[in-house]
Amino acid sequence: MKNEKVNRTVEDSNAGFYNAFESLSIEKMEQVWKHSDDITCIHPGWEMFTSWTAVRESWITIFQNTRSIKFYVTNIKVKAFDNIAIVVCLENINSGIDEHNSFKMGVFATNVFEKQSFNDDDHAWLMVHHHGSTVANYMIPNISDI
Amino acid sequence: MKNEKVNRTVEDSNAGFYNAFESLSIEKMEQVWKHSDDITCIHPGWEMFTSWTAVRESWITIFQNTRSIKFYVTNIKVKAFDNIAIVVCLENINSGIDEHNSFKMGVFATNVFEKQSFNDDDHAWLMVHHHGSTVANYMIPNISDI
Repeated sequence: MKNEKVNRTVEDSNAGFYNAFESLSIEKMEQVWKHSDDITCIHPGWEMFTSWTAVRESWITIFQNTRSIKFYVTNIKVKAFDNIAIVVCLENINSGIDEHNSFKMGVFATNVFEKQSFNDDDHAWLMVHHHGSTVANYMIPNISDI
Repeated sequence: MKNEKVNRTVEDSNAGFYNAFESLSIEKMEQVWKHSDDITCIHPGWEMFTSWTAVRESWITIFQNTRSIKFYVTNIKVKAFDNIAIVVCLENINSGIDEHNSFKMGVFATNVFEKQSFNDDDHAWLMVHHHGSTVANYMIPNISDI
């Protein structure tokens, strides 16, 4: 029962990451991540970024070059421990290039969250690692809203 | 000091994974992984495999289609907790196709290990997740042995 509750909290944090991504707001993305030197981020087809300074820059670049993006996240698998949780999932993405054109793609993601305790009752799961990689032979799922 | 020791043990397990990969031996790979239903594996440009049965099959397929493979692993970052550890690294790979031809490639990897305790003094870190993705603009490092 306790585990189920923790898993749900971690799933909420994972959903929060995709909400921040969809919002294309660096202020929202700032709330998702731990701001430390040892965090890492691997975006599909790009370099690995280490430290919040570098990871933040990468999000600014992505947001500046994205008109719109929608996520439909499936195949979610959560492994939660006392202070660390790993979420593996499939991002079904619909990204707008301009007013009339968009593309759909699939990205496998490994998302790692670290529990940050403020006091006995208050804590947050902050992202410390994101690894996204394009699905080679992606089949768009039959879902109307992506 | 304790943390350093744990990090070294996890790094050893990570090296053990690449040794098993280089050996192209399914028996050695079997010793690296946790044999459970909730493990996951994402090889570059392939499907996500879930459960030891499926992950094992994927390794057999890879080993049957690989003549030789050598890893030079760099950029290793370890995050170790009580029972779980995450290793992020860059695999510099030299893979032989036939007697005369080989190719070099870079793969970013997220490797997750779970601590399996047998008794108070005896434990092993077993792989529960591997996520590998090809580096798009890979620059081969100036290392003679890859």
